[in-house]
Amino acid sequence: MENFQFCIPTNILFGKGQIENLPQVMGDFGKNILLVYGGGSIKRIGLYDKVQKLLTDWNLYELSGVDPNPRLETVKQGIEICRKNSVDVILAVGGGSVIDCSKAIAAGFYYEGDTWEMIASHAPLKKALPIVTVLTIAATGSEADAGAVISNPDTKEKMALFDPAVFPKTSILDPEYTFTVPPKQTAAGSIDVLSHLMEQYFVPATTFMGDLLIEAVMKTVVKYAPIAMAEPDNYEARGQLMWGSTLADNATLCNGNRLAAFSCHSIEHELSAYYDVTHGVGLAIITPRWMEHVLSEKTAPRFAHFGKEVFHVHGKDDMESAKMAIDAVYKFFESLGVPMTFTEIGVGTEHFADMAKHAVQFGGLSHGWVPLNETDVITILEKCL
Amino acid sequence: MENFQFCIPTNILFGKGQIENLPQVMGDFGKNILLVYGGGSIKRIGLYDKVQKLLTDWNLYELSGVDPNPRLETVKQGIEICRKNSVDVILAVGGGSVIDCSKAIAAGFYYEGDTWEMIASHAPLKKALPIVTVLTIAATGSEADAGAVISNPDTKEKMALFDPAVFPKTSILDPEYTFTVPPKQTAAGSIDVLSHLMEQYFVPATTFMGDLLIEAVMKTVVKYAPIAMAEPDNYEARGQLMWGSTLADNATLCNGNRLAAFSCHSIEHELSAYYDVTHGVGLAIITPRWMEHVLSEKTAPRFAHFGKEVFHVHGKDDMESAKMAIDAVYKFFESLGVPMTFTEIGVGTEHFADMAKHAVQFGGLSHGWVPLNETDVITILEKCL
Repeated sequence: MENFQFCIPTNILFGKGQIENLPQVMGDFGKNILLVYGGGSIKRIGLYDKVQKLLTDWNLYELSGVDPNPRLETVKQGIEICRKNSVDVILAVGGGSVIDCSKAIAAGFYYEGDTWEMIASHAPLKKALPIVTVLTIAATGSEADAGAVISNPDTKEKMALFDPAVFPKTSILDPEYTFTVPPKQTAAGSIDVLSHLMEQYFVPATTFMGDLLIEAVMKTVVKYAPIAMAEPDNYEARGQLMWGSTLADNATLCNGNRLAAFSCHSIEHELSAYYDVTHGVGLAIITPRWMEHVLSEKTAPRFAHFGKEVFHVHGKDDMESAKMAIDAVYKFFESLGVPMTFTEIGVGTEHFADMAKHAVQFGGLSHGWVPLNETDVITILEKCL
Repeated sequence: MENFQFCIPTNILFGKGQIENLPQVMGDFGKNILLVYGGGSIKRIGLYDKVQKLLTDWNLYELSGVDPNPRLETVKQGIEICRKNSVDVILAVGGGSVIDCSKAIAAGFYYEGDTWEMIASHAPLKKALPIVTVLTIAATGSEADAGAVISNPDTKEKMALFDPAVFPKTSILDPEYTFTVPPKQTAAGSIDVLSHLMEQYFVPATTFMGDLLIEAVMKTVVKYAPIAMAEPDNYEARGQLMWGSTLADNATLCNGNRLAAFSCHSIEHELSAYYDVTHGVGLAIITPRWMEHVLSEKTAPRFAHFGKEVFHVHGKDDMESAKMAIDAVYKFFESLGVPMTFTEIGVGTEHFADMAKHAVQFGGLSHGWVPLNETDVITILEKCL
C-alpha cells in the first residue's frame, strides 16, 4: 500500500433542484461573475435562463462557445474579460471542456507571464479565481479535481494544468441536466469514465480494497451507460453515471495503489491535439489496441481478473481469459455506437511519429504499468487504423 | 438515488513517515498548541517524543488521560486550558475518543453557554478552533468527519455533536502507529467499522454503486481484521483497515442511499452511557441480535444478499440465507475474540427501560430501515443477555 495525500475540498451539491442553492453559493464571492459555457445546449434545456434568473443581483459577463478540447485562444479571451471587468468568480456551466477552460482562466487571471507557459511549465500557481460549476455531462470528473487539459492548435500540443488552486469551490451535480446529452456524447463520456478507472486499475501495484472499489464503479458504468443511452431520462442511470464519473477521477478509489502513466489517456491526448476527435471516441479506439499490445504472460492474469469481474467472461486459462476481456472491452465500446477505427474518423498515419514522440516525452509512458517507447506507441496507433 | 451534499475538506496525509510533515502542517496556525492524548500508549511507541521533537518551535500545552467514551468533564478541562493559554490549534494524537474530545473542546472554546447544552442542543456552531489529528487506531473515522460523541456520566447520556466546523484540517494516518494496538482493540475497532458500513447498507433505499462500494470495504474488513490480529505489524492489513475505516465513516460510499437511523449505534450509545463498555464490543453483541429481531420476509432478501457477498454463505432460500448471514456475522465477531453476551461484560437488565427510552428518543430509531419502538429495543437487549 503506497503513501498518498488525499484532499478534495470541493463542496458537492448532488441531485434534483440543487440549482436553487446557486444564489447562496455565489454569495460567498464578489458581485462580478464570468459565466462560461459551450454551445447552445444550456439554452435549450432552460439552464441558461434559470441561471440568469437566479443571479439577477450579480453582474454577469459571458464567455460562450467553448469547444470540446478547449483552446488556448479561448482561455486568453476569458482572462481578458475577467481582467477588464474585475471578475470575482467564474461560474462554469457545462461539461469537462467548459470547466477545464474555466480553470485555466482562473489561474491565468493572476499569472503575469505567458498563459501557455503557465500551463506547459507545471509551475505551482500562487492563486486562482474561485470557480463554481454546474455540471451538464458525466465524463471528466473535472467538477471535483484540480486538473484541466488545454489544447494549443498552433503547436499541436495538448497539455494538462494541475494545481490545488483550481479545485472548484462548489459543484452542482443534477443528473436531470444530462437527460438531453445526445447518445454519442453519453457514450463518449461513459468511455472516458471507464478509461479513467482502467488507468488506475492497470498499475504497478494495487490493493485489495482499491481493486474492489474501482471494480464497483466499472461495473456501474457497464450497467448504466447502455440504459442511459436507451432511456435518456432515466434518473437512476444518469445519476449513477454522474456520481461514478466524479469518483472515478478524483483518486477516491485508487488511494494506496501505485499509480503510473495514464497510458491510453496520454496517447489519446496526442490524437486530439492533432485532430478534432472527441476524447472518449479516441479512448474507445485506442484502449483495446493498447490492451492487445501489452498482453503478455505477465499481464494476462490481471486482464483475466478484470474480464471476470467487470464483464463476466473467462476462458480456460489466463491468456484465453485476457483475450476474452479485451474482446469484451471492444464489444462494449462498439455497442455504445462509437467508431472503432481511425479510418472511420479520418485519422491517417501522417502524424504518428510526432504523436508517439510527444506521448513518450510528455505522457510519461516509459513509467507506465507496461512501459512504452515510441515504437510501441506507433505499433498501437497502427493497430487503430 | 437520493440528493446529497458531499464535502470532506480534511487534508489526509496517509502512509509511512507522514509525521515528518507535522511542522509544515502546524505552520498554518499560531504558536500555542493543545496536545490531546489518552493513556500512555503514544509514549510507549515513541510518538509522544517524536511530536515533542518536531514541535520545539511551538508552545505545547497538554491534556492527557482522555478516556474511551470521552467525558464531558475532560472536555471542560480542555476548554479551560485553551482559554487560559490562548491556544490557537488542537493537536489530537490518538484514536476516536481523543479526536472526539478534541472536537468538543474546539467547539466549546468559542461557545459562551453551557458545554453540555452546546452538544445536546445540536445548534449550529459559529466557529471552532482548528484541529489536526495523528491517528493511532482504525475505528471511528473521526479523523475525517464532522462528528464527536461525548458522554455525560451525571445524566447517563451519550450525545453526538455534528458540525462542519469541527472537521479536522489535516489528519496524519500512518498505519505503523497501529502496530501496537492490542488485539482486543483491533477487534473492537474493526467491528465498529463493519457496523458503520452495515448501518449505511441496511437502509430504506440503496443504489447499485453504493452497494458495491460498501461491500468492497466490508469485504476488506472481513479479510484484514483477522490478519491484523494475527500479525500486528502487517502493514498492508493495518493500512487497508485504516483507510477503510476512514471511508466507512465519511459518507463517501453511501452517497445516493436513503440513510436512516444508525440503529445498532444508537442502542450501543445507550449501553456505553450506562456501563464502561468498549463501543465495538457493545456493537458486536447488539448487531446480530438486532438482525435476528428485524428479520422478516421483507428484510430476508437483503440480509441474504449481504451474506452472499460479504461472507460467501447462502442457503436454499432467502430466509435460510439470511439466517446464515446472521450466524456468519456472529461467528465473525466471536472469532475476533470479543465477548458476545451482556452477561460476560457485567451488564444486567436494570437499565433496559431507560436505555430503550433514550435510544428511541435521541437515536431516531423510529425512522430506521426497520422502525423500532421501546419494546423492540428491550427485546433486542434481552437477546443480548
